[in-house]
Amino acid sequence: MKAVILSAGKGSRMKSTTPKPLIRLFGIPLIEHKIRKLKGCDIAVVYHDKKLAEYLQKKFPKVELIFNPYPEKENGYSLYCAKGFIKEGETFVLLMADHYYGDAFYQEIGKTKKGNYLFVSPYCYDPLEATKVQTQNHHIIKIGKELREYDYFDTGFFILSWEIFKYIEKILDIPKITLSRVMQLVADDKKLYYKEIKDIWIDIDTKEDLKLAENLIRKSLIKESDGFISKLINRKISTRITPLLARFDAVTPNKITVFTTLLGIIAGTLFLSKNVLLAGILTQISSILDGCDGELARIKNLSSKFGAVLDTVLDRYVDTFIIFSIYLSLDRTTIVSGLFFLCITGTILVSYISHLTKIRPYFITRDIRLFLIMLFSIISPIYTASLEVLLAVIGTLSHLGVVYSLLKYKKQT
Amino acid sequence: MKAVILSAGKGSRMKSTTPKPLIRLFGIPLIEHKIRKLKGCDIAVVYHDKKLAEYLQKKFPKVELIFNPYPEKENGYSLYCAKGFIKEGETFVLLMADHYYGDAFYQEIGKTKKGNYLFVSPYCYDPLEATKVQTQNHHIIKIGKELREYDYFDTGFFILSWEIFKYIEKILDIPKITLSRVMQLVADDKKLYYKEIKDIWIDIDTKEDLKLAENLIRKSLIKESDGFISKLINRKISTRITPLLARFDAVTPNKITVFTTLLGIIAGTLFLSKNVLLAGILTQISSILDGCDGELARIKNLSSKFGAVLDTVLDRYVDTFIIFSIYLSLDRTTIVSGLFFLCITGTILVSYISHLTKIRPYFITRDIRLFLIMLFSIISPIYTASLEVLLAVIGTLSHLGVVYSLLKYKKQT
Repeated sequence: MKAVILSAGKGSRMKSTTPKPLIRLFGIPLIEHKIRKLKGCDIAVVYHDKKLAEYLQKKFPKVELIFNPYPEKENGYSLYCAKGFIKEGETFVLLMADHYYGDAFYQEIGKTKKGNYLFVSPYCYDPLEATKVQTQNHHIIKIGKELREYDYFDTGFFILSWEIFKYIEKILDIPKITLSRVMQLVADDKKLYYKEIKDIWIDIDTKEDLKLAENLIRKSLIKESDGFISKLINRKISTRITPLLARFDAVTPNKITVFTTLLGIIAGTLFLSKNVLLAGILTQISSILDGCDGELARIKNLSSKFGAVLDTVLDRYVDTFIIFSIYLSLDRTTIVSGLFFLCITGTILVSYISHLTKIRPYFITRDIRLFLIMLFSIISPIYTASLEVLLAVIGTLSHLGVVYSLLKYKKQT
Repeated sequence: MKAVILSAGKGSRMKSTTPKPLIRLFGIPLIEHKIRKLKGCDIAVVYHDKKLAEYLQKKFPKVELIFNPYPEKENGYSLYCAKGFIKEGETFVLLMADHYYGDAFYQEIGKTKKGNYLFVSPYCYDPLEATKVQTQNHHIIKIGKELREYDYFDTGFFILSWEIFKYIEKILDIPKITLSRVMQLVADDKKLYYKEIKDIWIDIDTKEDLKLAENLIRKSLIKESDGFISKLINRKISTRITPLLARFDAVTPNKITVFTTLLGIIAGTLFLSKNVLLAGILTQISSILDGCDGELARIKNLSSKFGAVLDTVLDRYVDTFIIFSIYLSLDRTTIVSGLFFLCITGTILVSYISHLTKIRPYFITRDIRLFLIMLFSIISPIYTASLEVLLAVIGTLSHLGVVYSLLKYKKQT
């Protein structure tokens, strides 16, 4: 499908010399979020600012650039500039460069039938500034900023058919052709449908909006399946590191995966050389950074099945190597060897079975395991048997986790 | 759906006092194969032999028994006896008690639209005795034993609508009402469709047929994903043990799983007490018997998702326990500990990743792993370092297996 991004407007309220679409949200220029999420679409950007055009040409040479010489004619005219890009009869996506949309918006694109659709939301962070819509049956009947009675907010995300250009042509001679005005014409013909999208969206006008959007993204990156140490500590830090990494195209999720693996292996060798305290702390740092690969992949739309499997496998290698190093640093009595056996098999099996059954034992996820390693490492100077106890604790919890998953799965099936 | 099994015929060619439907195929009475595979259907059996009725009443009290006082009137009349069981407008399955059908037949039941269907096959093990059909477009136009020109063989497996009883009533006064005769009437009205089923089926008339069927079942139990030791040795033995176990209802797949797990653990403790030779042999025996749970589950239609997960988890416990026992029986030097680490992590991870990626490294499946353990145990009296080498070999092959799966998966995605 084709997609048109409108970015000819001026970001005067932002008080910045950077063109608004290039302002970074979570480390990534606003417009780039859209281009990345529209992977698979033929994209055109309607622009006025030449800085923006230069940036896009360099970074996304496949994106078609359409110059709008009259931005003061408003966004309806901006859309009209893209008339040559869309062929008669085609359907296309239209969205605003300075809005942020959650993934559900993009996922809905493929599911929409032919016709003119406005994606709407019952929520808005700036209701005064927002465009509202009034609906009847499946139609939109009224659209505008000043509506007193309204059902939803206009998110600026559309699926449109080519005929929209015909509607713009009807009012081409007026000085300010707003999108709302164009859409009201379509609505009058009962040809504008709406679709409610249940995900975040925000029109970024001010620095406060930017901060708000950043927080919303941060929250969306916390996975339901995250363990409680992850929710309590790790994600709070990793989601602040990821925006810094996102600035650099050379930093890919798989590279982060490999880097945190190396960090884990260094932690292991520190256990071997009996630098227990440092090893424990490095283990926890590696655990925190381990969140960044997934976050970056999601925010930059780079998630891959292979990446997920690679991450899983390398995590297991790190975990078992650290545990093995702890074992090698201890006296290898039969009891300690037994604890090691318990711990190493449990660590892999609990993860294995939660993949098989899709049931995660909440009390022994990876974040908890690595946090326990740090905790027991820290107390090791004052409690000499702490590493043996650590093996016993992780081992026991993990095998209980296996049993927990098995029993819950039996009930389920 | 309802199902009618016809078993009023006499098994005179079998030379046995047991009623033919009760003759055991792969340890299970012929008729029971059908009843088990039709799980979820309301089943009626049309019978003449009282022994058969007594057996079914005891073992499958939910199955409805319909007595046919005139078996000499042939199977068309037998079917007519079930008229009261089927309500007007209903569709039902009809099949023969003395045939064996592969799973594809039963899987097709739910996929068939309303109407009269005969499941046909291009293959037959006894073409002289078999009923043939001639087809045109999607219809059957001729059906009978003596057809000179024919496209398929009649497998005796039908999906029929209630109107079939109306057809039988048209010829109710003739002495021998064969099914073929009834079906020819339906075919004459262009109301008999056919469906080609690509799976084994066999009409069991003689002891030779029984043997043939047993071999076909045995072959069908070999999984494509089986390792080469399994195909070469294990399955050949386990598929001969499973029919013996299938005779006893108390023997369930999950019980076999638990039993082979115990056997593996005994093998492990034998390694601990340095009975290496015996331990190795027991390991291989446990590996062979490990096939029986799955085979029994498939043949008795008792497969469950939970059973499969339980089997996977317990297999990992057995494998790792045996490897741990071998390690404990050796000097726990750093090198040996390293080999142990390599071996134990590889063993679980190679299985884990082949579950994640659905790519099995053919060179290090479980059957091969356990066979290697036996092999190196046998040579241990003449080669003292054999168990250390064993750890190294399994460890290396397993981690190569992990890399193999990862690389193949990357190519695929």
